Amino acid sequence: ANAGVDKIEAIFVGCMTGGMFTQQEHIGAMVADYLGMAPIPATRTESACASAGTAFRAGLMAVASGYHDVVMVGGVEKMTDVDGAGATTALAAASDREYEAFHGVTFPGLYAMMANAHMARYGTTREQLAMVSVKNHANGAKNPHGQYPFPVTLEQVIGSVGVADPLGVLDCSPITDGAAAAILCPLDKAAGLSRFAPIRVTGSGQATDTLALHQRKDLTAIESAAVAAQAAYGMAGIGPSDIDCAEVHDCFTIAEIMVMEALGFCEKGMGGKAVEAGETQLDGRIPINTSGGLKSKGHPVGATGVAQIVECVKQLRGEAGDRQIANAKRALAQNMGGTGASSTVHILE
Amino acid sequence: ANAGVDKIEAIFVGCMTGGMFTQQEHIGAMVADYLGMAPIPATRTESACASAGTAFRAGLMAVASGYHDVVMVGGVEKMTDVDGAGATTALAAASDREYEAFHGVTFPGLYAMMANAHMARYGTTREQLAMVSVKNHANGAKNPHGQYPFPVTLEQVIGSVGVADPLGVLDCSPITDGAAAAILCPLDKAAGLSRFAPIRVTGSGQATDTLALHQRKDLTAIESAAVAAQAAYGMAGIGPSDIDCAEVHDCFTIAEIMVMEALGFCEKGMGGKAVEAGETQLDGRIPINTSGGLKSKGHPVGATGVAQIVECVKQLRGEAGDRQIANAKRALAQNMGGTGASSTVHILE
Repeated sequence: ANAGVDKIEAIFVGCMTGGMFTQQEHIGAMVADYLGMAPIPATRTESACASAGTAFRAGLMAVASGYHDVVMVGGVEKMTDVDGAGATTALAAASDREYEAFHGVTFPGLYAMMANAHMARYGTTREQLAMVSVKNHANGAKNPHGQYPFPVTLEQVIGSVGVADPLGVLDCSPITDGAAAAILCPLDKAAGLSRFAPIRVTGSGQATDTLALHQRKDLTAIESAAVAAQAAYGMAGIGPSDIDCAEVHDCFTIAEIMVMEALGFCEKGMGGKAVEAGETQLDGRIPINTSGGLKSKGHPVGATGVAQIVECVKQLRGEAGDRQIANAKRALAQNMGGTGASSTVHILE
Repeated sequence: ANAGVDKIEAIFVGCMTGGMFTQQEHIGAMVADYLGMAPIPATRTESACASAGTAFRAGLMAVASGYHDVVMVGGVEKMTDVDGAGATTALAAASDREYEAFHGVTFPGLYAMMANAHMARYGTTREQLAMVSVKNHANGAKNPHGQYPFPVTLEQVIGSVGVADPLGVLDCSPITDGAAAAILCPLDKAAGLSRFAPIRVTGSGQATDTLALHQRKDLTAIESAAVAAQAAYGMAGIGPSDIDCAEVHDCFTIAEIMVMEALGFCEKGMGGKAVEAGETQLDGRIPINTSGGLKSKGHPVGATGVAQIVECVKQLRGEAGDRQIANAKRALAQNMGGTGASSTVHILE
């Protein structure tokens, strides 16, 4: 209804682990069937928490190749059918099971190691980590679709129950059920469909890195995000200073800081200081996670990449309500799997 | 080495349920990493046992769109890390978990219902079902990569341990560890790469159907295969009588018979009789599953769709050894998920 289409030709749907969360795979066919859209082609894509980012990119290729004109891309995850330990086990399937998960390390533990390395090398502080959560909750409090739409204070984040030092529970994105979808079509066919001016996808990048954290050259950098961003910027013919707002993968507070650096929104090692200076707030130099981010809006892992796209579209249309930024012309969405073994970056204008 | 490429630009890899079989998701990044190919983009696709078919099709779109020139498509499944009950549970994730699997029905049970319906309506016999297994084992005995590369007799199949009436264990494809891969590129770039003449992909089709069997209009038809085949034939500008050999999804003996009918290789309801008449043997009118099929060659579920492509390529190159058919110019591969909730069909020339 929002896109003004009454017929789609194909579906790409991201999902990280329908099997481990709900014992249901065959997610593409399930979505087509339950929407009453069979026999159209429907494919699930997976790249851990970047699953919906890869669905979006597969949909771009489906349209650009001429195979299909009107394609639905989206993502879905139902994470609350299992208990907390079950969810931790399922999410650990995004790490290297042989070299990481089987030895007991969890994702909070992996990101805590990255946080400690970043703090040791660059002087990033506990307060700066917490400020990411404070900012994102402040934004999320203005998002009617947020899972935890309330503000938190610096003291609350720093004082929150410890999960993996230095990360407290208010540094960690939650367990979420959710879904998101968008419609892609050739630009020349978009004008007649929706009451909105079409949003153009001008850049797309995707990259991988080692699955296991210990094999990286640098624990303080997310190289897959940097490589994917360079590809997306190159395709769009722009650079980071041309971006008006961004949704980035803040699965943990340290992740947002490291991704800001990978995307070129600040110098290497300066992410914490940029957050502290307010540069990423709604009225800052480069507003980040206006939706509330994974932290406040929620993180249904296989859906997150397209949920980010939805926020970008709302900002570009001027539909973001109390969290609307001024003059949003270009938005960027960065979605990430594991500790950065995969990333996608998309630029919308 | 076989394709003559020393560099690939992207990977699409099919896998049905790395999570439930091995607790490892993030399969695309894992493959890129373990092959030493990071940071290239790598995406897993899933459509249950048609996962590799969807990877192949996603790779076609990646090349046709101009996003990438040289793409590896493949599939992988490691099914033997769990016991038999664990494998049955994992595979049941391809059915409708809420309406089928939770109530205790397994895939042999679902296909047995389809077999009984086909026998009741069309007079298909127990012997005709068994003849599919006899033929495929005869072919597989000539395949050095087969998992069960030995012949079986009609008496052995009919007398094999019952799994779900009328299907015995020798009507059922096995539990398999395996992988397959192929290289796709634009035709004008292929000529200089390999010592072989390029194989053209002239048709691609994909379709879905209801996830649950009880919602189908007809238990004796696999409509998704018929719809996908029509799309592929239309794209290639040919019909079923133009196909020289085919790999089809014989997860159970009845499946091969029903798919033969869906692909137009015989009239509706006549699949069993065509098998009995020898029309699908190596020297028959339309040789089917020259590789040995899922039954004898093996069925690593997420890899099967591209393993079928590999056999088609071998036949078209004249490299199929003792199972080579004469004058193979056009080959078809049909890959299927669940009881046919998804199918892909590809035509190679």
